[in-house]
Amino acid sequence: MDVYEAIRNRRSVRAYGPDAVDREVLLRVLDAARLAPSANNRQEWRFVVVADHDRRQRLMQAANNQRFVGEAPVVIACCAKTDERRMRCGQLAYPIDVAIAIDHMTLAATAEGLGTCWVGSFYEDKVKDVLGIPGDVRVVELLTMGYPADSPRPKSRFSLDDIVSWEAWNL
Amino acid sequence: MDVYEAIRNRRSVRAYGPDAVDREVLLRVLDAARLAPSANNRQEWRFVVVADHDRRQRLMQAANNQRFVGEAPVVIACCAKTDERRMRCGQLAYPIDVAIAIDHMTLAATAEGLGTCWVGSFYEDKVKDVLGIPGDVRVVELLTMGYPADSPRPKSRFSLDDIVSWEAWNL
Repeated sequence: MDVYEAIRNRRSVRAYGPDAVDREVLLRVLDAARLAPSANNRQEWRFVVVADHDRRQRLMQAANNQRFVGEAPVVIACCAKTDERRMRCGQLAYPIDVAIAIDHMTLAATAEGLGTCWVGSFYEDKVKDVLGIPGDVRVVELLTMGYPADSPRPKSRFSLDDIVSWEAWNL
Repeated sequence: MDVYEAIRNRRSVRAYGPDAVDREVLLRVLDAARLAPSANNRQEWRFVVVADHDRRQRLMQAANNQRFVGEAPVVIACCAKTDERRMRCGQLAYPIDVAIAIDHMTLAATAEGLGTCWVGSFYEDKVKDVLGIPGDVRVVELLTMGYPADSPRPKSRFSLDDIVSWEAWNL
């Protein structure tokens, strides 16, 4: 799928059909994450891929009982092994690096006919508990993945004029 | 360009030819950012697009005199209007939201034959000063953009087995 088409078609899918995601498809999507850039190429992202039914139910509970988290045939806990290093600009590197890798996965998944949803509403300690994730690892987002069972709606976005300024700040 | 091809071909370009980037191309790339998802669809990303030569020199100085920042025909200051809101998981929303939008731009730019580089090594107060960016706006990254004047090298990345674990943490 063309990259612009993937960017246009990607949407947050919160209703999934029952079909499992084939291992080969999943590996292609994960490989898109693997190829992502990261600050100083530290590649601190780590992914725990969950398909087991009971474990997904426990992840759903850790994510405020959002039903689609339990319904999606795959949930990926997107983590960072990190020393909380900051870039010169003041930002932590790891949330940005993990976000880039996740974005690659959402676009690759779109090309595969899959839907995804970024989930930031979860209790990190509970997710760590369910998946046996060590204390010094951060869980940045959950990503649900599966075949969409709903229909696309038009995207609601600002216009370019609202978000872009030329040569100097004028917003 | 196919989305997987864009993901494979995207690389950090730190040497640029002198050709300017056409406005229509730039607008397509910026529109890819505009379509990005964000937490609660807040769309807090803002972009200051800089092509003016003198201003780019000043941005280069604000970015530790990294020469390619002054050489690139376009530098985009990628900002966030933010109340520093955190998601339930504990992460700040805005660096992740800005990163998603930037990643969209890097892939769109790749499809356009352009090169980009994420720049996190800069003094935020100096960049704000050069571009007149208000105090409550955060500058998360600079993104350089232009036609590559160097050659691709093979990507150095961990294998999937190093970064992916199945059902529970095992890394």
